[in-house]
Amino acid sequence: MTTTGSNDKADEMASVPTESTTSHGGADPFAKNGLHDIEAVLKSRGVDAFYRAVQGWTEDGYALLDGRKVVMAGSNDYLGLSRHPRVLAAAVEAIGRYGASVSGSRALNGTIELHETLEARLARFLGQEAAALATTGFQAGLALSAALGRDDVAFGDIRNHASLVDGMRMGLGTVRSYRHRDPDHLRQRLRAAAGPGGRLVVTDGVFSMEGDVAPLRALREVADESGARLIVDSAHDFGVLGRSGAGLTESAGLTDRIDLIIVTMSKALGSTGGVIAGPAANVRQLRYNARSLLFSAALPPASTAAALAALDVLEAEPERRDRLHRLGRLLHDGLRAMGFDTRPSTTPIVPVTFPDVPTAGAFWAGLCEAGVITNLSGPPAAKRAMLRVTVTAAHDTPHVEHVLRAFSAVADRLGTPRADEPLPPVELTR
Amino acid sequence: MTTTGSNDKADEMASVPTESTTSHGGADPFAKNGLHDIEAVLKSRGVDAFYRAVQGWTEDGYALLDGRKVVMAGSNDYLGLSRHPRVLAAAVEAIGRYGASVSGSRALNGTIELHETLEARLARFLGQEAAALATTGFQAGLALSAALGRDDVAFGDIRNHASLVDGMRMGLGTVRSYRHRDPDHLRQRLRAAAGPGGRLVVTDGVFSMEGDVAPLRALREVADESGARLIVDSAHDFGVLGRSGAGLTESAGLTDRIDLIIVTMSKALGSTGGVIAGPAANVRQLRYNARSLLFSAALPPASTAAALAALDVLEAEPERRDRLHRLGRLLHDGLRAMGFDTRPSTTPIVPVTFPDVPTAGAFWAGLCEAGVITNLSGPPAAKRAMLRVTVTAAHDTPHVEHVLRAFSAVADRLGTPRADEPLPPVELTR
Repeated sequence: MTTTGSNDKADEMASVPTESTTSHGGADPFAKNGLHDIEAVLKSRGVDAFYRAVQGWTEDGYALLDGRKVVMAGSNDYLGLSRHPRVLAAAVEAIGRYGASVSGSRALNGTIELHETLEARLARFLGQEAAALATTGFQAGLALSAALGRDDVAFGDIRNHASLVDGMRMGLGTVRSYRHRDPDHLRQRLRAAAGPGGRLVVTDGVFSMEGDVAPLRALREVADESGARLIVDSAHDFGVLGRSGAGLTESAGLTDRIDLIIVTMSKALGSTGGVIAGPAANVRQLRYNARSLLFSAALPPASTAAALAALDVLEAEPERRDRLHRLGRLLHDGLRAMGFDTRPSTTPIVPVTFPDVPTAGAFWAGLCEAGVITNLSGPPAAKRAMLRVTVTAAHDTPHVEHVLRAFSAVADRLGTPRADEPLPPVELTR
Repeated sequence: MTTTGSNDKADEMASVPTESTTSHGGADPFAKNGLHDIEAVLKSRGVDAFYRAVQGWTEDGYALLDGRKVVMAGSNDYLGLSRHPRVLAAAVEAIGRYGASVSGSRALNGTIELHETLEARLARFLGQEAAALATTGFQAGLALSAALGRDDVAFGDIRNHASLVDGMRMGLGTVRSYRHRDPDHLRQRLRAAAGPGGRLVVTDGVFSMEGDVAPLRALREVADESGARLIVDSAHDFGVLGRSGAGLTESAGLTDRIDLIIVTMSKALGSTGGVIAGPAANVRQLRYNARSLLFSAALPPASTAAALAALDVLEAEPERRDRLHRLGRLLHDGLRAMGFDTRPSTTPIVPVTFPDVPTAGAFWAGLCEAGVITNLSGPPAAKRAMLRVTVTAAHDTPHVEHVLRAFSAVADRLGTPRADEPLPPVELTR
């Protein structure tokens, strides 16, 4: 159920889960088929995989679900900072100083000094001139619309996150997609769309569902051939990749050659909100013109302070990133040794695919019963029926071993097909 | 700079601040004219009205700006709950229990019990079967897109908030606007758009910039004539209008005749986030299909708990609403006695219009100098050059008197035209 959608208008129709299939003679816009129907079918088979509420967390890193301790192996809290004492203390202190909310938009009455401090810190950490906060990562993606005038053309990887797809669609320009992680196809697309307008290439850094990595250097080269701008959404690589944790732009050596970086603070920073960072003129243009930045109440003081503290911890404790990668390797290796194919991931986001959604759903329910929560997804939201499995730095070896035992037991019970031979170890991206 | 935009595709082009006017031969999507140019002109004239950071709040209800105590007369914190001790305590407690973030989407791994509790409480308070949270009010508005299939037609008041405009545009259907608060024009539009699809009428309850009120009963009647559904965005009337504070739907007696209510928790609830509430089937349809709900990290624990506590206070302390209206009346009466026209507002959101943006900007700067922060707005974001002035229940009579004195002094100094005769008192909506 997470992420993505293609970019071409026609392709998109097939993947946007708002397809018009009214069942009341067209009279009721709220009576359409959709994912709620899939949910109902799964639930009738005992698979209750969506909108499950946790009751809190234990000190040894388990979530509480229906009063049971479970391994949350579907979180994006990659560095485990959402419950770090320094992060919590900063959030509490900000509530005392600024209140629970700023109750207004950044532009008119909702800016507090903390926003400016966080923007300056993020810009510096990312090696960029400027940064602007959005209240969610989703709204940071939507802000792209302000860069797309009538004559402009945006080119997006067909597996980009929904917020980028929607941001491109909301602009006034033309939207094109290119094949997943395929710079040659992008080149063709760029050449076929010559015109007076500007061009924007937009890609996820690490793709959220399958954990694979965009070929950013090649995309940059192709974009440069056509004078196109390049935007990367580092939601899932910020804090995870790069020598200092600044993400794919850093690990690809493109810090001073990127036109905009989008970051989501609800992942490695253990908070909420979005950021756009890049050259000052680019950031300023969106800050004053993107509707998702202008017309939304600002990031709450607690979330702002939490992200700021998390950035401090991220810099002070690089061992958290090491632990994340060590546990990611354990997970990959363990699953592959059992015959589960974790391709195309080379990161701590690990996909395990199934022939269809009901099979994946049955596996999800078996894992849940065994105390492991994963993310169930399938078409049209993801390319294939799959479970998305993640580890975080709030886990340790026993949590991962718990996940692996559960996978093995459920596979034995359900007879899920696995490869005959153990798969070779995967080369992880750093 | 806040809000609105029309709904027809053609009209919208004129008001969306992403107009393509590239100045670099079309090559750079980030080099467009826009509101940043207006900001630069204003700043060159000494008017620094946007993205101004406050450093905190004093115990007697003033904001701190550049170390000075100022009256924040541009906030949406209508009931003054963003700094209420019970609200702050709840937010702090939630951080201790759940952490700074849930680090994932509601659907897959980001739901906590608090979300479910808040949804149930909001549904009950609004007199609706069900409610679903969004991470921002903006994203609650965008969720409308999931109700608009290819054959459907959405009709929006031409002054609707940007999030509704964008939500309608993001859907697959056709978008039409009708004249501001004009049920007869809506009737014409509905009749002219007969077809097999569903129809959706979408309106703000109280309009955010001018404080005027939608004729909800008349809109309901007109919608019913065509079997159209009616959606109201109660961002600025929730907590403000209605016997129990449930908003315009309550004061209009339409609690059981509304197809969806949108509420923004960053206004009267002093928190952050959005809600859609209505019949269970309608809410379920959006919960499982709206991209802005599915593909965004959930509302943070602190914001969720703050809104829940604020709802308790809202119910327990109706005198806060009385104070808001008393202060709103003081503001209207005082400004009108000085010859400032506060029409069309009948609520605590008070517009004061000017012939052009530079004149309004000069007035804004004078008020700021006099210790009063208002919201400077103008075309295309608002209909006219204006200052938006608001009071909240965190103010008291001295704050409003401060605002009135400042208006009088600045008008005397700048010679701003005012009506020759005092205007008669305005009838405020309750």
